[in-house]
Amino acid sequence: MQKKAVILFSGGIDSTTCVAIARSQGFSCYALSCDYGQKHNLELEHAKKLAKILNVVEHRIVSFSTILGSALTESKIQVEDYKANSEIPTTYVPARNTLFLSFALGWAEILNAYDIFIGANIVDYSGYPDCRPEYLSAFEHLANLATKAGIEGNRFHIHAPLLHLHKSEIIQKGMSLGVDYSMTVSCYRLDKSGRACGKCDSCVYRKKGFNEAGVVDPTRYF
Amino acid sequence: MQKKAVILFSGGIDSTTCVAIARSQGFSCYALSCDYGQKHNLELEHAKKLAKILNVVEHRIVSFSTILGSALTESKIQVEDYKANSEIPTTYVPARNTLFLSFALGWAEILNAYDIFIGANIVDYSGYPDCRPEYLSAFEHLANLATKAGIEGNRFHIHAPLLHLHKSEIIQKGMSLGVDYSMTVSCYRLDKSGRACGKCDSCVYRKKGFNEAGVVDPTRYF
Repeated sequence: MQKKAVILFSGGIDSTTCVAIARSQGFSCYALSCDYGQKHNLELEHAKKLAKILNVVEHRIVSFSTILGSALTESKIQVEDYKANSEIPTTYVPARNTLFLSFALGWAEILNAYDIFIGANIVDYSGYPDCRPEYLSAFEHLANLATKAGIEGNRFHIHAPLLHLHKSEIIQKGMSLGVDYSMTVSCYRLDKSGRACGKCDSCVYRKKGFNEAGVVDPTRYF
Repeated sequence: MQKKAVILFSGGIDSTTCVAIARSQGFSCYALSCDYGQKHNLELEHAKKLAKILNVVEHRIVSFSTILGSALTESKIQVEDYKANSEIPTTYVPARNTLFLSFALGWAEILNAYDIFIGANIVDYSGYPDCRPEYLSAFEHLANLATKAGIEGNRFHIHAPLLHLHKSEIIQKGMSLGVDYSMTVSCYRLDKSGRACGKCDSCVYRKKGFNEAGVVDPTRYF
């Protein structure tokens, strides 16, 4: 029987590439999206469509009310334009990846899946603490202590196959696996017709990625 | 200024005692309850009332849709009567404490609170893996890697002051701090008028606790 993997899936470049990578490694893919009141929740509509196109075994969306405090969820805080510096940006959501991975862990345990993929990256790094390798190792350790499955001797693995790749390398990797990036969305300020701002961190990294990969950028900008 | 603590708060004996303990240690208390579709969600109504009585600074309820798989959330799975054995019971919710602690961590970070209280216990132990001390240490380690606050040099502490206490000792501790247990609820099968079944794990431990503490059990049973 094919091994199962849970893939944290926003429908952006990184998580879409993760699905392709997990599949190329022989996993059957279960995609998990999180609805946490993000302003760019058109993201979820795109994620649904894309999950169908990618033909994952199952796509689930978990909803949760966040404890506010980020430009991604709170209307009072503006998403800033990209700035080249090493500060943690206002788009940081407290404990976000910890919540995402916890939901993935819960679902994995139910599915008897022991592999969780997350598109975390530290190269084109926005300064999020919960993307670092030491954080991901700590979560893997936690997962094996937290669960009935762990006690019974199964080992969970957190896969972050994009961790050390440039955006351009992620795109090249995905293209080599047949990913069509035209359906993916990345912008923190996406408009209702799915067009991107071109100026937020996420847009800037994406644009640069396509450029450096020598691939025509399929994004629609407003 | 008083230090702040986030207390995971269900309105049961343990978390109510945690509020009293945190307060006795000089913390100002922020109570966090989780609405995860538990069948016994009258628990949350009681938690709201009790949070007022306890006069916490703020009481928040976070809601999330669980990935199903427990007798506490899924109508197809029956809550079993208490059985004296060491198996993990059907009331185990995959990744529950990891989710609870993740939400607490997110809120703590926003509040500039670095202390999180959880009423985990391994003595009158129901066999949950995510109550063990090694699990709680792993979460504390994770918390300090996961957050902006951790990177900036603040240290989170996960407090589990009831970890090694018998239920009777917890009750005695709470009584010495002035806790009125008559408003607390514990039953997994609570009825609409707030009466308890007396037969589930949670009721059995509670009843035994009052008995051994030599305190009149204030619970209303059906």
